[in-house]
Amino acid sequence: MNRITIGIIGAGRIGKMHAENIIHYPNVTIKAISDIFTDQIKEWATNLGVEKVVNDYTEIINDEEIDAIFVCSPTNTHAEIIISAAKKGKHIFCEKPVSFSLEETTEVLRVVKENGVKFQVGFNRRFDRNFSRIHESVKAGVIGDPHIIKITSRDPEPPSAEYVANSGGLFFDMAIHDFDMARYLANSEVVEVFASGANLVEPYIKEAGDIDTAITTLRFANSALGVIDNSRQAVYGYDQRVEVFGEKGNLTCENDRPTTVELSTEKGVYKDKLKHFFLERYEDAYHFEIKSFIQAIQEDLPLICDGNDGLQAEIIAKAARQSFEEGRPVKINQ
Amino acid sequence: MNRITIGIIGAGRIGKMHAENIIHYPNVTIKAISDIFTDQIKEWATNLGVEKVVNDYTEIINDEEIDAIFVCSPTNTHAEIIISAAKKGKHIFCEKPVSFSLEETTEVLRVVKENGVKFQVGFNRRFDRNFSRIHESVKAGVIGDPHIIKITSRDPEPPSAEYVANSGGLFFDMAIHDFDMARYLANSEVVEVFASGANLVEPYIKEAGDIDTAITTLRFANSALGVIDNSRQAVYGYDQRVEVFGEKGNLTCENDRPTTVELSTEKGVYKDKLKHFFLERYEDAYHFEIKSFIQAIQEDLPLICDGNDGLQAEIIAKAARQSFEEGRPVKINQ
Amino acid sequence: MNRITIGIIGAGRIGKMHAENIIHYPNVTIKAISDIFTDQIKEWATNLGVEKVVNDYTEIINDEEIDAIFVCSPTNTHAEIIISAAKKGKHIFCEKPVSFSLEETTEVLRVVKENGVKFQVGFNRRFDRNFSRIHESVKAGVIGDPHIIKITSRDPEPPSAEYVANSGGLFFDMAIHDFDMARYLANSEVVEVFASGANLVEPYIKEAGDIDTAITTLRFANSALGVIDNSRQAVYGYDQRVEVFGEKGNLTCENDRPTTVELSTEKGVYKDKLKHFFLERYEDAYHFEIKSFIQAIQEDLPLICDGNDGLQAEIIAKAARQSFEEGRPVKINQ
Amino acid sequence: MNRITIGIIGAGRIGKMHAENIIHYPNVTIKAISDIFTDQIKEWATNLGVEKVVNDYTEIINDEEIDAIFVCSPTNTHAEIIISAAKKGKHIFCEKPVSFSLEETTEVLRVVKENGVKFQVGFNRRFDRNFSRIHESVKAGVIGDPHIIKITSRDPEPPSAEYVANSGGLFFDMAIHDFDMARYLANSEVVEVFASGANLVEPYIKEAGDIDTAITTLRFANSALGVIDNSRQAVYGYDQRVEVFGEKGNLTCENDRPTTVELSTEKGVYKDKLKHFFLERYEDAYHFEIKSFIQAIQEDLPLICDGNDGLQAEIIAKAARQSFEEGRPVKINQ
Repeated sequence: MNRITIGIIGAGRIGKMHAENIIHYPNVTIKAISDIFTDQIKEWATNLGVEKVVNDYTEIINDEEIDAIFVCSPTNTHAEIIISAAKKGKHIFCEKPVSFSLEETTEVLRVVKENGVKFQVGFNRRFDRNFSRIHESVKAGVIGDPHIIKITSRDPEPPSAEYVANSGGLFFDMAIHDFDMARYLANSEVVEVFASGANLVEPYIKEAGDIDTAITTLRFANSALGVIDNSRQAVYGYDQRVEVFGEKGNLTCENDRPTTVELSTEKGVYKDKLKHFFLERYEDAYHFEIKSFIQAIQEDLPLICDGNDGLQAEIIAKAARQSFEEGRPVKINQ
Repeated sequence: MNRITIGIIGAGRIGKMHAENIIHYPNVTIKAISDIFTDQIKEWATNLGVEKVVNDYTEIINDEEIDAIFVCSPTNTHAEIIISAAKKGKHIFCEKPVSFSLEETTEVLRVVKENGVKFQVGFNRRFDRNFSRIHESVKAGVIGDPHIIKITSRDPEPPSAEYVANSGGLFFDMAIHDFDMARYLANSEVVEVFASGANLVEPYIKEAGDIDTAITTLRFANSALGVIDNSRQAVYGYDQRVEVFGEKGNLTCENDRPTTVELSTEKGVYKDKLKHFFLERYEDAYHFEIKSFIQAIQEDLPLICDGNDGLQAEIIAKAARQSFEEGRPVKINQ
Repeated sequence: MNRITIGIIGAGRIGKMHAENIIHYPNVTIKAISDIFTDQIKEWATNLGVEKVVNDYTEIINDEEIDAIFVCSPTNTHAEIIISAAKKGKHIFCEKPVSFSLEETTEVLRVVKENGVKFQVGFNRRFDRNFSRIHESVKAGVIGDPHIIKITSRDPEPPSAEYVANSGGLFFDMAIHDFDMARYLANSEVVEVFASGANLVEPYIKEAGDIDTAITTLRFANSALGVIDNSRQAVYGYDQRVEVFGEKGNLTCENDRPTTVELSTEKGVYKDKLKHFFLERYEDAYHFEIKSFIQAIQEDLPLICDGNDGLQAEIIAKAARQSFEEGRPVKINQ
Repeated sequence: MNRITIGIIGAGRIGKMHAENIIHYPNVTIKAISDIFTDQIKEWATNLGVEKVVNDYTEIINDEEIDAIFVCSPTNTHAEIIISAAKKGKHIFCEKPVSFSLEETTEVLRVVKENGVKFQVGFNRRFDRNFSRIHESVKAGVIGDPHIIKITSRDPEPPSAEYVANSGGLFFDMAIHDFDMARYLANSEVVEVFASGANLVEPYIKEAGDIDTAITTLRFANSALGVIDNSRQAVYGYDQRVEVFGEKGNLTCENDRPTTVELSTEKGVYKDKLKHFFLERYEDAYHFEIKSFIQAIQEDLPLICDGNDGLQAEIIAKAARQSFEEGRPVKINQ
């Protein structure tokens, strides 16, 4: 197996998590990390054994020893970073969404393709053991043609007003994961979207022109129907379930819980709440996406989640937003 | 407790089931049953201890000893029967839907009200122990304001081509139960409907101008959103689940299964399939709706499911059909 | 189907329940009920449509129209009643245990056999849908040879001091059901018993010379091992589970609950408690045992639970009591 | 946090696993590994970054830089290694059992105590998230006084004939984990044991004078009763469940499964089998026991599982073997 040298751009919560996961892989080294707040990450990076901590990401892009980069900076910096890295022949892992504009994402994909580098988008849920099992079962024909895809996706608590302001809105920030999951489970493209939204959780979300609750109906190219329900606040934890119903059966999965313990008392029967935080809920999935990306580079394999997957999810998000704003179903040309 | 004397109009599958359930109640007597095929039911009715088996339902309507009737004849005969029975002061239990026309149903309700009789519509699922528990919990504020109502409602196998032709279509024949359930769970009226449909099960359903698969999004007066998914064919059994998500929690229920037995072998873990047939699945609910109707008459209590509930479900069904046909959300004036 | 005329001896809680279940069967009539407190049951019996209410059970035994009797009087009256009824050619359903003495029970069985009447013992749990499914699966070889039989059997609350005094003790009064279940599930006879007991629930149970908690290990003729745990007080409800582990797999079942509803809140996830009362938990089983008894008479079929099953359970109970008292395993000659 | 330098003695399956887990901890270094087959582990150890690979374990014991050792060699070598390591002031993690002789284990404990080193025994199951939750809940009084402790512990497949020959027998090799778990859950010592055994799985186990199936009943100092069922072969996977029943409730847990996916088809409902292999089943527990040991050294905390726990489990195992051989309950002096 070839050694791989990695650079990480952006060391916020998600960048740090990726770095801490990467160091577990033999034959993989993190050589450099860039962040605009170098002071705040220096000690952490040194403890991880990282050689260079830099302010300017171009030092990473221009480092010829670096084979692959992780783009964990704010969304509005993604396109520029990816394009310059691709031109230097680096493989790229990018957090979702690729950008807030379909034109920009399309241009990114063109450059990536032209330079023949691997480009993985961070739809971590594809690597969840339950969801990937369902994806594989559908693909293997276990339930025949899929007829209905159902996704429940509810955050444990709403983001802050500041976050909401720059999030791109519920469809681009939150439901985009579910749009990708819908395509992944249906093995088909979305051709029509109808989105219903509501403000039921926090006034500041409404004030920001955003919604906090949504039901989005999808129609797929293979004639299947889909539905996603989203809420910014499930007080009982991070509720993430999928279901695929088809001509020969139904595939469902439950949420993971911290333990399987049940307590029965005079008052009733109690189980654990759901895992609350997305880093905890998808802990294993975050590991598997790294493992899969590294393996794809080392063995030149196709990616489980590539740039086109990033683009398609953005196309659906845009259509969903338009559908909600105009109060009508919106068609997507495939 | 007063004795109640009952007449049953229409002794097809559902009429027979009601008759067999009714005889278990003390102080209730079935005096007469009418059916156009009297020969076919005579022996059965005699074994039940029913005094009169008649061809013409008016003999039941005109029998002064009869306090209440069960209308189990085809839908297109309901309005006439109910109106004449109400005028004779009889309490009425009517299978759903009341009629295929909102005007007719409205007229029926007017006459019923004018004559002050009890009028229960056969939305049996309101009497299911799981769904009624969720309804009561929502009503008691256990999860605060409801935000999302989700209903999964899938038949085990499609009806025959003949049945489909006279069924009124998926929204009027099948989803009407779910429209009622949505109102029951949300404790609020529906103000907007968007219905997506597909033909994925049987060609003869499409040929009849009907659909076999649908996802219907609802918006309620209390701002909650709702979604129903329907299929005419779930090969694994009669799949009936509901979920109500709200500001303080989530209420879900599983399908009932014939047993709770699990078998673990070298190959995997097996559980029972769902109950297959609606009479089996809602066996207890069919008992409870009778019990509740009888009690409402004996003790002059309000009904759990009255004429207005029948009307509202028809209004939503009509809007859903229109939404599907016109490819746009349809508003309902409340 | 022949009509069957029934007499009931003893109209306490269990006698009344049987009577109320029996009247649901067509072609079956309860002609007479005897009880030493005739005044207290007269109205109830009349409402059920029972012709005769008598003080002296011999009036039932001597009534030539009566085909079958239900023995629901105190245990110490069973043997005499059964013997005189058998001699009159009546079929007999007897509540467990048949008697408190193996000699008496053996004599009862001899007379029953001599007179060729049906004799069913009221081990109602054999008719539970979950347990009977497991029994049938084991018998069908689904898990190959059974290796371990496990029974959890815990009452929701301890009986009164008065009841305990005349109960025959935990092994004869409570665990006897489990001894029968163990034989039923293993399809084999018990050849050795070791019983461990403790007083952890109520002082008055200890004062009566009885125990309230027990673990009983069994060895079967087919080499399988078994274990039963009993408690007189499970504050969370009537806990009744069985498990059969074998060479090719494992069969388990869960307790029934009033509903399948789950509530998730900020504090945790809640399910219903178990059903609390034995009449509620085994409601269906009590129906099925009656149905099965009637059918066995009408169609001259073998019984699912006969006199020998009653005797064997008593033999095990006696050995368990001896094991506990002497602190050593006790062999049973088969 | 102080840096800790570790030496590993014995690099078989379990020694390798511990080594691979240890390297994930910051501030912990594995300096040396000893094994009698150095050739076979050299490459593996070098890849892990281990400095020294030696044949003779005394090189590790005598290395002054090494703070703590892991004893993963065969059981008959444990005592000698531990005693010499303790005399050199090294902290010790030892796989279970400490030895095959109570005298030897007692002597080991004496030396360990004399030298004031930490001594953890590898009862990994104490670190399972489900079992430790139940332990903590019992300790916190959630179910009041414990009355019944139940442990199901079944291996997925029997060990080889060679392994059986040197295993010390089912009670010392397999059930010893359950004896420790019983003490851990009951928070009390065992005062009496009765063990029933059988040969139902493999003839070579019987030929070796061992058994493959057992039910062991325990009595605790706090008056609770306990029962363990063991089998060397559960074809459906590694079956590991515990239950603690008490005056105020019941605590249970389910087995972990690879996914929570359920497939419903025309034939039934399917779930994943249990995890099969103990390293997979207790993957997290093996991590937590290392973490806990390291933390206990670094912060001088009491151990969750110490030498006395090892001794007590051996005392129970010996009593169980004697009980089985003599066919009678055996008392343990506490």
